[in-house]
Amino acid sequence: MVLFIIGLGLGDEKDITVNGLEAIKTCEKIYLEYYTSILGVNKDKLEELYGKKVIEADREMVEETMDQILDEIALDGDKVNFAILVVGDPFCATTHTDLYLRALKRKIEVKVIHNASIVNAVGCCGMQVYRFGEIVSVPLFTEKWRPYSFIEKIHANYKIGLHTLVLLDIKVKERSEENLLKGIY
Amino acid sequence: MVLFIIGLGLGDEKDITVNGLEAIKTCEKIYLEYYTSILGVNKDKLEELYGKKVIEADREMVEETMDQILDEIALDGDKVNFAILVVGDPFCATTHTDLYLRALKRKIEVKVIHNASIVNAVGCCGMQVYRFGEIVSVPLFTEKWRPYSFIEKIHANYKIGLHTLVLLDIKVKERSEENLLKGIY
Repeated sequence: MVLFIIGLGLGDEKDITVNGLEAIKTCEKIYLEYYTSILGVNKDKLEELYGKKVIEADREMVEETMDQILDEIALDGDKVNFAILVVGDPFCATTHTDLYLRALKRKIEVKVIHNASIVNAVGCCGMQVYRFGEIVSVPLFTEKWRPYSFIEKIHANYKIGLHTLVLLDIKVKERSEENLLKGIY
Repeated sequence: MVLFIIGLGLGDEKDITVNGLEAIKTCEKIYLEYYTSILGVNKDKLEELYGKKVIEADREMVEETMDQILDEIALDGDKVNFAILVVGDPFCATTHTDLYLRALKRKIEVKVIHNASIVNAVGCCGMQVYRFGEIVSVPLFTEKWRPYSFIEKIHANYKIGLHTLVLLDIKVKERSEENLLKGIY
């Protein structure tokens, strides 16, 4: 039994690697994590390519019920494979590193299948990836919550002649103003 | 007619994306650029998967005869597609950006297919990609040529609490000591 954490790349359903697609074909359950990034196509396009059902996993599911799912995987163990699909590359968001560690604790075998991420694909805008400094995130502003601390980091890169990749936090299901104020963002 | 610049990812022949593989199937000539990075499998594994012949392009070919190849492509234009395969992601090396620009000058339609690069896949070692500073290259040392300037860059990252991705220049066909001394490296 293997838990595959598979990067989907940045564009459409066919940006998955051949290795990734072959891994999915061996899986019984397939979860799509879609709250840290947005895919360019709908879930049904994925299901069509895979010939399998895909379960959407929102932030709540990944951070709360995923422990339960991992327990199930650990129990079902020898019988079936599972996949968690991630937009971009699996390790370009903290959540997935955490997921990996939680699976390892349960002695679940994890295989990671890499793909393009904006961290490297940003090179397509003509700037050399070798000339980027620290990556900066801009949180989702609300009427009351507008932190500007990211500007200092961009300036720090600029001062030493480096470009900055600026990631914008996106508004998805759980990312309500209420949750932001509760610190869940 | 399209010139595809296709990232092969970092592992074996099946780390190409489904989009990349489909593009190759439409191509008449397929070049593999292999001097900026090393692929984990031999060329025959690629040819087996593609069902097509792959032409190895060394540094000399890419930097000197590629102009000629691009001229041919521009002439053959309407009839056939071409592919240049690149280990990792197409835009993570300066050469490929240059190639892209040279093709555009000849009014050749270019499509880039991204893939994983060490720039993002480095996250698999457990360090967050958000906490990396400028990427540093270490040149290939010879008995007489041992520049240490890269150490300052690593130190600059370290001082502000950032990790450093250190790329090692690799020894391939053209990378002889003789060429290094001539400045061809």
